[in-house]
Amino acid sequence: MTEHLPVIGIDVGGTGTKAVLADASGAVLAQRHRPTPPRAERVLELACSLVAELSEDAAPAAVGLVVPGVVDESRGVAVFSANLGWSDVPFRALLAERLGLPVAFGHDVRAGALAEHRLGAARGTADAVFLPVGTGISAAHVQNGRVHSGGGYAGEIGQVPVAGGRLEAVASAAAISRRYQERTADPVAGAAEVAQRVAAGDAIATGVWEEAVDALGGALIWLTALLAPEVVVVGGGLSQAGPLLFDPLSRRLEADWPLARAPRLVPAELGDRAGSLGAALLAADLAATKINRTEMG
Amino acid sequence: MTEHLPVIGIDVGGTGTKAVLADASGAVLAQRHRPTPPRAERVLELACSLVAELSEDAAPAAVGLVVPGVVDESRGVAVFSANLGWSDVPFRALLAERLGLPVAFGHDVRAGALAEHRLGAARGTADAVFLPVGTGISAAHVQNGRVHSGGGYAGEIGQVPVAGGRLEAVASAAAISRRYQERTADPVAGAAEVAQRVAAGDAIATGVWEEAVDALGGALIWLTALLAPEVVVVGGGLSQAGPLLFDPLSRRLEADWPLARAPRLVPAELGDRAGSLGAALLAADLAATKINRTEMG
Repeated sequence: MTEHLPVIGIDVGGTGTKAVLADASGAVLAQRHRPTPPRAERVLELACSLVAELSEDAAPAAVGLVVPGVVDESRGVAVFSANLGWSDVPFRALLAERLGLPVAFGHDVRAGALAEHRLGAARGTADAVFLPVGTGISAAHVQNGRVHSGGGYAGEIGQVPVAGGRLEAVASAAAISRRYQERTADPVAGAAEVAQRVAAGDAIATGVWEEAVDALGGALIWLTALLAPEVVVVGGGLSQAGPLLFDPLSRRLEADWPLARAPRLVPAELGDRAGSLGAALLAADLAATKINRTEMG
Repeated sequence: MTEHLPVIGIDVGGTGTKAVLADASGAVLAQRHRPTPPRAERVLELACSLVAELSEDAAPAAVGLVVPGVVDESRGVAVFSANLGWSDVPFRALLAERLGLPVAFGHDVRAGALAEHRLGAARGTADAVFLPVGTGISAAHVQNGRVHSGGGYAGEIGQVPVAGGRLEAVASAAAISRRYQERTADPVAGAAEVAQRVAAGDAIATGVWEEAVDALGGALIWLTALLAPEVVVVGGGLSQAGPLLFDPLSRRLEADWPLARAPRLVPAELGDRAGSLGAALLAADLAATKINRTEMG
């Protein structure tokens, strides 16, 4: 009766790795947070020890692992990650062999999109785009419970050239902080502090912010034109900015998008747990598939 | 044995309506071309008379009808067309009632995408974007035999603001011709004639052309970033321009898209028959579904 067993989701980030033990409905029973170690081999060891810790009461039905970069879900391979310094790592097969458990493997942002669609801000919608704006910027389109992968390359909108550089060099949370510091030689703790200065009337902060929002608005228009999603879920650190971000983006859609249907813009609900919850959903789906196969076989 | 019967596909365009009688493999057995009449009622009458003409030898298994504008495939309704002046016409139900035959209803460009994917330039690919550049500009993404519809609103990239106006006011075949005439007061027969003047070294023609290609290149970068399709099939009148269009677009992708996977750019193969062939495919799919239901029921 593996359908009643919990699953484990692990989200390997650029600096930290998060793991959740969750039931089939996505409710979190336990969680862990560790620094991400260097090298794929050490990441596999960490995943095994997180699974061991979270499996003390009962063996999970399956484990889901998600990573950033270019991910080929169909082959279970991490094709490339500049930040984590790996290429062509067959994580799914390697982890399944070490754990002796079914392993699902995926992409952190696409898994986050799945989680926001099933459990978070896009619950109940026909389709949604998840748009995390943090250290980088990307987008994932989820529909009918599936996220479009494009062979692992879909959604890398942070790489699109816009006025002032590539999108994520202008409009990511990291870029907003860096650009403000470049113009003022005044260190800030992050984009949230730049946002505070915008609210306080700082002209340089306002300039940096408006350039970022303008670039994000352009991205929003293009994804609306191409996909016409019912909802765009804005996540990542920048989504914390609230009306300072959402109001001008909504105005941009109103001003520049002439068609009757524009997406609703909503903040993400799952925060930095979207990836690990998405990994748990991939694991739960895998476990359910195996049950069906067993029952039908 | 309806699976061996032919199907009929009808593509209602802004000026002309095309109809094909095709077998299940998409081979055209007969075709007709008529001016598109005003008003939805007259379009229905035309569709009935085209079906009667093309059904002389044998009743078709099903009929597919596709129209431009905002189309809700799930309800079988033409929501809106500025050019054809209709709104909320339940074409599928109306035509099925008059014909007494199964009727599939869809969108002209999405049907064209299906046809290019199954029978044309994107045969054998995992996914493709069909990008017709003619009187207007739109895009349709096809994957696993399905075209993303976005409730009828997906793909309207012609409406995106770019330098100089909306994309289709700068980069459509119609816009290229119009913009050249505005700058020279020299009438041209169409974008093809502007292309000839570009090839002959005309500076004004070159300027108009480069602005159009630049805007199309931007659209290509965004759709690549969001969808990472294996192939982009460029159709419509402008695709006739050959290397004058495809070479600078390819260079733009090389210059501005940093990731390993970029789509192949190819010209459409089905020309102005893509829509009617796509309508025939929708009809064939509908007929096949009915057969399966009957066999299983």
